[in-house]
Amino acid sequence: MSEGYSGFDWPVRIYWEDTDAGGVVYYANYLKFLERARSEWLRSLGVEQTELAQRDGVVFVVRRIEVDYLRPARFNDVLSVRSRLASVARASLEMIQGIERGEELILEARVKVACVGCQDFRPAKIPDHISERF
Amino acid sequence: MSEGYSGFDWPVRIYWEDTDAGGVVYYANYLKFLERARSEWLRSLGVEQTELAQRDGVVFVVRRIEVDYLRPARFNDVLSVRSRLASVARASLEMIQGIERGEELILEARVKVACVGCQDFRPAKIPDHISERF
Amino acid sequence: MSEGYSGFDWPVRIYWEDTDAGGVVYYANYLKFLERARSEWLRSLGVEQTELAQRDGVVFVVRRIEVDYLRPARFNDVLSVRSRLASVARASLEMIQGIERGEELILEARVKVACVGCQDFRPAKIPDHISERF
Amino acid sequence: MSEGYSGFDWPVRIYWEDTDAGGVVYYANYLKFLERARSEWLRSLGVEQTELAQRDGVVFVVRRIEVDYLRPARFNDVLSVRSRLASVARASLEMIQGIERGEELILEARVKVACVGCQDFRPAKIPDHISERF
Repeated sequence: MSEGYSGFDWPVRIYWEDTDAGGVVYYANYLKFLERARSEWLRSLGVEQTELAQRDGVVFVVRRIEVDYLRPARFNDVLSVRSRLASVARASLEMIQGIERGEELILEARVKVACVGCQDFRPAKIPDHISERF
Repeated sequence: MSEGYSGFDWPVRIYWEDTDAGGVVYYANYLKFLERARSEWLRSLGVEQTELAQRDGVVFVVRRIEVDYLRPARFNDVLSVRSRLASVARASLEMIQGIERGEELILEARVKVACVGCQDFRPAKIPDHISERF
Repeated sequence: MSEGYSGFDWPVRIYWEDTDAGGVVYYANYLKFLERARSEWLRSLGVEQTELAQRDGVVFVVRRIEVDYLRPARFNDVLSVRSRLASVARASLEMIQGIERGEELILEARVKVACVGCQDFRPAKIPDHISERF
Repeated sequence: MSEGYSGFDWPVRIYWEDTDAGGVVYYANYLKFLERARSEWLRSLGVEQTELAQRDGVVFVVRRIEVDYLRPARFNDVLSVRSRLASVARASLEMIQGIERGEELILEARVKVACVGCQDFRPAKIPDHISERF
């Protein structure tokens, strides 16, 4: 990431499960790493998604994602997922995420996350006690 | 499978998602194929698991599995999952499943499936309208 | 898809493996469906990726993806993945893909795929015998 | 685990990717956790599987697995995978693994792992510099 990049950092080790027969990480699996990092970022802010569902009846879902795959990661690599909040609206937020292996940038992503009702999956206001933390 | 093997046959194509950097199908992914075949076997008997949950409040879960991995499967292979019911009890059933690539046996499995309540995951009698079909 | 949409159609059944505890298909798993459809589209054109690697020493990898998640899919759904080629360059191609459940559009994606060397993952010209088929 | 159980302990956090629409961890995904723990156990002994492949031309693969699923794990759970070596032979080894959530036993597994050639997947002697560490 360019200098000045601050944000939440989450490490990921690559196991057999993450790779494919091309010898590299399967492209869909990076989205798992991005999601783990977003979940841990929320946790770092004191937000537990299980409570969010039970107390507020809402869940965060991905509405849109843009991913640039820059270099392949491989078995046994240790990666770092960097996440930062780009913007927050009433019922959604946007994050910029990057996956790095040391100095190398593996992947860049822009993710739009919506707050929706647990049952109907319709847009719902982000609860105040959550948005206050952003 | 040995001769006399009858049962329900379900085809599986191997995609990149199924393989790992060893160049073969990742060992956990065969369990997905076994489950797809069990779901399709139930469907072939007229049992839809969504109705089962809604109407009867039960779901089938795996209690125990034994798997012998005999040969590796690879990207692009077309496999056949063969499934047959070995025994049925009040709240569980046992299936024998095999995965083949043409004449070659890739894997053999013995799977104990339990009928449990959707919410509490406690053992529940298999509904009569289901067990009648076995 | 809007009218005039032609292209290659590939069916996908949703199994337990595809869903998450939110009760819907996990967002990364749609990328598996998109990849299955691209592999089958290539196959429909007479291109086997195993031969491509062995004979030409190249493999197709995803360089960039944009996905709009419009509606959630659920366990047991039967979806249809529609794929069409948007453009072809010397060493890459772009595809438009959509996932539908009957009349409903579940997801739209734009995928840039690059042709790279199997070992070094550097850009490689799409072999003529392949690009001729597009 | 019963008293006297010693072994290698590896933590696993449950993310959305691990769960299914039944609200619990999908049964095949526990095998990923078991494999992560075996990889980390090897690493704790100073064995890197990438070196093993490059230097010795061998890879460890699962030949047989027995799993008893005792309780469901759920989103956000923190589990502990406990692994211990049960026996070692010339070209294979057997491990006992358990997954726990605090005091509760989630799953027990017995796993037979074989050492095979990277290319031919035929049984190969476990290299001395590895077996010495067990």
